[in-house]
Amino acid sequence: MAGSSFGTILKVTTWGESHGPAIGAVVDGCPAGIPLEEADFESYMNRRRPNGGPFSTKRTESDRVEILSGVFEGLTTGTPISLLIRNSDHHSGDYDNLKSLFRPGHADFGFTAKYGIRDHRGGGRSSGRETAARVAAGAIAAKALRLLGVTFETRVISIGGIPFEESEKIASFIEECRARGDSAGSEVECIARGVPSGIGDPVFDKLDSRIAQGIFSIGAVKALEIGDGIRASSSFGSENNDAFYMEDGSVRKLTNHAGGILGGISDGSDIRLHVFFKPTPSISLPQQTVSLEGSDVPLTIRGRHDPVIGPRAAVVVEAMTALVLFDSMLLNMTARFSRIQDFYRP
Amino acid sequence: MAGSSFGTILKVTTWGESHGPAIGAVVDGCPAGIPLEEADFESYMNRRRPNGGPFSTKRTESDRVEILSGVFEGLTTGTPISLLIRNSDHHSGDYDNLKSLFRPGHADFGFTAKYGIRDHRGGGRSSGRETAARVAAGAIAAKALRLLGVTFETRVISIGGIPFEESEKIASFIEECRARGDSAGSEVECIARGVPSGIGDPVFDKLDSRIAQGIFSIGAVKALEIGDGIRASSSFGSENNDAFYMEDGSVRKLTNHAGGILGGISDGSDIRLHVFFKPTPSISLPQQTVSLEGSDVPLTIRGRHDPVIGPRAAVVVEAMTALVLFDSMLLNMTARFSRIQDFYRP
Amino acid sequence: MAGSSFGTILKVTTWGESHGPAIGAVVDGCPAGIPLEEADFESYMNRRRPNGGPFSTKRTESDRVEILSGVFEGLTTGTPISLLIRNSDHHSGDYDNLKSLFRPGHADFGFTAKYGIRDHRGGGRSSGRETAARVAAGAIAAKALRLLGVTFETRVISIGGIPFEESEKIASFIEECRARGDSAGSEVECIARGVPSGIGDPVFDKLDSRIAQGIFSIGAVKALEIGDGIRASSSFGSENNDAFYMEDGSVRKLTNHAGGILGGISDGSDIRLHVFFKPTPSISLPQQTVSLEGSDVPLTIRGRHDPVIGPRAAVVVEAMTALVLFDSMLLNMTARFSRIQDFYRP
Amino acid sequence: MAGSSFGTILKVTTWGESHGPAIGAVVDGCPAGIPLEEADFESYMNRRRPNGGPFSTKRTESDRVEILSGVFEGLTTGTPISLLIRNSDHHSGDYDNLKSLFRPGHADFGFTAKYGIRDHRGGGRSSGRETAARVAAGAIAAKALRLLGVTFETRVISIGGIPFEESEKIASFIEECRARGDSAGSEVECIARGVPSGIGDPVFDKLDSRIAQGIFSIGAVKALEIGDGIRASSSFGSENNDAFYMEDGSVRKLTNHAGGILGGISDGSDIRLHVFFKPTPSISLPQQTVSLEGSDVPLTIRGRHDPVIGPRAAVVVEAMTALVLFDSMLLNMTARFSRIQDFYRP
Repeated sequence: MAGSSFGTILKVTTWGESHGPAIGAVVDGCPAGIPLEEADFESYMNRRRPNGGPFSTKRTESDRVEILSGVFEGLTTGTPISLLIRNSDHHSGDYDNLKSLFRPGHADFGFTAKYGIRDHRGGGRSSGRETAARVAAGAIAAKALRLLGVTFETRVISIGGIPFEESEKIASFIEECRARGDSAGSEVECIARGVPSGIGDPVFDKLDSRIAQGIFSIGAVKALEIGDGIRASSSFGSENNDAFYMEDGSVRKLTNHAGGILGGISDGSDIRLHVFFKPTPSISLPQQTVSLEGSDVPLTIRGRHDPVIGPRAAVVVEAMTALVLFDSMLLNMTARFSRIQDFYRP
Repeated sequence: MAGSSFGTILKVTTWGESHGPAIGAVVDGCPAGIPLEEADFESYMNRRRPNGGPFSTKRTESDRVEILSGVFEGLTTGTPISLLIRNSDHHSGDYDNLKSLFRPGHADFGFTAKYGIRDHRGGGRSSGRETAARVAAGAIAAKALRLLGVTFETRVISIGGIPFEESEKIASFIEECRARGDSAGSEVECIARGVPSGIGDPVFDKLDSRIAQGIFSIGAVKALEIGDGIRASSSFGSENNDAFYMEDGSVRKLTNHAGGILGGISDGSDIRLHVFFKPTPSISLPQQTVSLEGSDVPLTIRGRHDPVIGPRAAVVVEAMTALVLFDSMLLNMTARFSRIQDFYRP
Repeated sequence: MAGSSFGTILKVTTWGESHGPAIGAVVDGCPAGIPLEEADFESYMNRRRPNGGPFSTKRTESDRVEILSGVFEGLTTGTPISLLIRNSDHHSGDYDNLKSLFRPGHADFGFTAKYGIRDHRGGGRSSGRETAARVAAGAIAAKALRLLGVTFETRVISIGGIPFEESEKIASFIEECRARGDSAGSEVECIARGVPSGIGDPVFDKLDSRIAQGIFSIGAVKALEIGDGIRASSSFGSENNDAFYMEDGSVRKLTNHAGGILGGISDGSDIRLHVFFKPTPSISLPQQTVSLEGSDVPLTIRGRHDPVIGPRAAVVVEAMTALVLFDSMLLNMTARFSRIQDFYRP
Repeated sequence: MAGSSFGTILKVTTWGESHGPAIGAVVDGCPAGIPLEEADFESYMNRRRPNGGPFSTKRTESDRVEILSGVFEGLTTGTPISLLIRNSDHHSGDYDNLKSLFRPGHADFGFTAKYGIRDHRGGGRSSGRETAARVAAGAIAAKALRLLGVTFETRVISIGGIPFEESEKIASFIEECRARGDSAGSEVECIARGVPSGIGDPVFDKLDSRIAQGIFSIGAVKALEIGDGIRASSSFGSENNDAFYMEDGSVRKLTNHAGGILGGISDGSDIRLHVFFKPTPSISLPQQTVSLEGSDVPLTIRGRHDPVIGPRAAVVVEAMTALVLFDSMLLNMTARFSRIQDFYRP
């Protein structure tokens, strides 16, 4: 089944394995006339890149995005934008001992149960490497949104349960984690500002519903909150309802417990998400697992792995949110017949 | 935009407003040969029905599901199954004073911002009433799943933050809530047992990704956890990874922190979800809002409303999960070419 | 597999069998604010209705379209429009002798091969009756198009190879056909005027590609021509190319061999289709067939059947074309980023 | 709008412009375990390649298909197969004089009307060059079908109305055409043998309906016949109906006027299509057109162009048919619940 496409008007298809020659994305349905150059991808790709700092793998990825189609003389043309990112720095050999094993916490067993075959090198298709293609695609959506007045603020909230602003504590926590071959969970917040009201479609394509699909499609995500999230489940209606009021001729809300979405449709306030990642499943502590042949075997994973997922995945959260928001804004243009009449008036 | 359809092979389309003549669902792509009669819907519909008990509205809904097509001589035929549920017990008059107001916590403002028009009676399309159609559709999926060995256990975990098993405390809490015209949040757990391994599709159609879309399409859901959920974000990889082992020739896991899904594909253990609902937004305490004309106005909502959403929404959670699981199991049948060759071997 | 839905933004789902209690359509994604009442369906439904005249069955169908949702105070609301058409005048008994046979030229064998089960009464889902639901849905699209300046001219061109304007010859031809228990093929032309240029999407969703899907989804269609159609295959480029020229500041074409579509995108001239129907497969002449049990058996079909399909199917051709055109016009609104910026400019 | 994807389970997305660095296709949803190597594409690509013979352009295209993902150790893995074909032999300069003109018979005007911008070099996205990507994708479907017992026979039937077997007449006709700078129309027949009965989905996803979408998505197609096609519209039911009979325990048909599809579902006999192409719109005879600025201007097209489309497009017809057939066979696997029970039986 074809699960590598996302979106309705703006449709992104990603492809590629961790240790193949390249990965990429095709962004179809992108409106014509958006200024776009390879440099537009850089800041996004940089946020995802391992920086050799405390949170990331030592693997280096240059991750230059090549535009193969859909852009002419610096503008999108409305035709599919094919983006290519070459893989480099292969250490496929690192994975030879994993060929006939299922790594705990990974997709290895699921892929084998499903397909009867898998590219075991570095997780193949289920590798975090795949998200580079989404980030490239999301950079286009984010650029279009910025031109439409929508901006993002995305940051790591906590690592291993420790608030991220307590930076020294975090640094030593990560260092200890890495030193003993372990990994830690993390939490990311993403806020989208400037989203107009009216975006999102009842019933199954509610804005939160589509965001949720996008966010849970990121490997390692185990929970999502919108607005107050879990806290709403222990509050009263009199606390949780956001009162409306008028300001400068616009409808505003006194509070934003809802996180910017009511009944699946944006209400004009900030859209606020909290995303929770499990710890990196690749740890170098000894683990117990089974082999393809069906025997219990001990496992020790070698290779270079991020000890925590959130710091590099924050931009992936933002990219998926941007893809949903831009697509939903495009879909929203046909909601009122009077505007369609205006559009086609001779 | 068409947001009222859900699913790929098994495609459900719901329609209808709270105070129109009827609501319904069309279930297309349902395989032929499933025994189905109107009684099959009863237990599901009963779980959603207000029972006059402490958690629910006094509005009565008989909610008999009429099958208009797709079933012949007691078996599904493979053609679309049209399900009709008549609306009754209208008190549209209850909503007259809400016609020109936006109720806090409701979709009123979003619908108006989007469409410039709305059926204000009882929330119209955004009413919880819509979920009756999904529950009817979900009953078909649940029946098919049961015949395939998949069962559900779904229950309310907490109300207003109070564990549901503390029943006396809950009852008095709800009573107080109702008495002062307020409402409370709630939490529901849904466990699916017997799902084979290999179900779900990388990348954007991961099993958790599709479940998330389904769950967040239920009004009032503000958070979703899969497996350990938020807890995973503060744990270590050495704790969170589920070790594999062999038992009776099958691959098993020693623990199930993952909640039955690894890398977006089922691993054969229980699929476990926690769903968090905000408090019912319709409260009879005085609130502040604005009118269609753009003035600040006070609001007092009359009418009959559940003081808490979880107890009646639990079956909606189960229904959406069943729809995703059955559809994903159908999609999974084409994953391996060798099985396709077996299927078409003369 | 779910094959009963059609369209991307404007999505139509039909349901129902010939001899069940009702058939219907759900039209989702219809923009809000289109004036719509049950009377809007009448002229369309009347064109499809058997009129007791020479071309049609004696079965009577009142075919009143009931609107169950999506319209409030005379305007579409943007939510799904559920349309219901009750079946009446059942003569299911007419079909008892066909229960265990495959009628030549019908879908009986295909449905049985596929599903292993079928509702044999009157063709069940594969009955021409199903098209009543599409015509109802198409009436909404046609109304919207009319308000946008697009009109249709649809007519029967020939029956049994005889030009339709030779009316006397046609009448006697049909009468002879019916008298000897036979049926005849037919040809329908549909012209859409006023379609703006730029409608349709490269590559697989070309306007002609989507029209072709819609037209061939009408039972009994065996050929489709766009513009000059087959004639183009024996002409020269110097004849077939339509020269452009300017008139009143607009781009026009001197000729319209292309039938209004170039490279899959409308060019502003009339869109012109020719649709070819096979003869009604239900004939009362003796035929040879096989039984469900696998024996050769003779067959004589009783019951009331149109001797020719085109006259009643003309409005179905128009309805499908209208659905494609309106959907494509909606899709086209997001083609240029500058217009999206205009739309969302505060 | 995203029109560059095709298919439901097996989903093909093509990208690329005629004079960009490359074109390509992503084939998602392809079952795992199909043997595939780059050589598998060769015979298909060769049939599309200009051979310097009488029917084709002098432009040379090596058209090697590179597999960038989805194949591991010679087998498909179930993940998206990314295919890349580099463009070479650019003569972009040939198109400089066309930058500000609309070529008659081409998509130039439509693209400009739609997007307000276009890559004018060699037709950009609307170039016949795009079909190379589909042919590569179709080669995978064709290989899978061959392993399932389905084969194709595809050939040119006529050029300029002259039967193709009259080879000498054809050769001199083409030579004259080319000599005077003109082009000619053509007709292609495609027969698929060995398709099992039961393939295709009522109502809108009928097998003929999906084939029609695929065929009309090929540029320059102006008509499609299935089975007897237009001839059926002037025949009698007693002639056109195909009688069923039993042979060796199987249901067979005495004739095949239907072309292998009844009621949208395959009946086990040969599927037979006739496809009609207009003449190549690029002719070097003087033409009349208009400029981007809105003036009437004369036009003479230089550059290398095929004088007739059918000979190279025959394999494109076969590729699109293969994509539809394989996808429809995959979709068909979920039609019967008893088979789903067999599939999932522990």
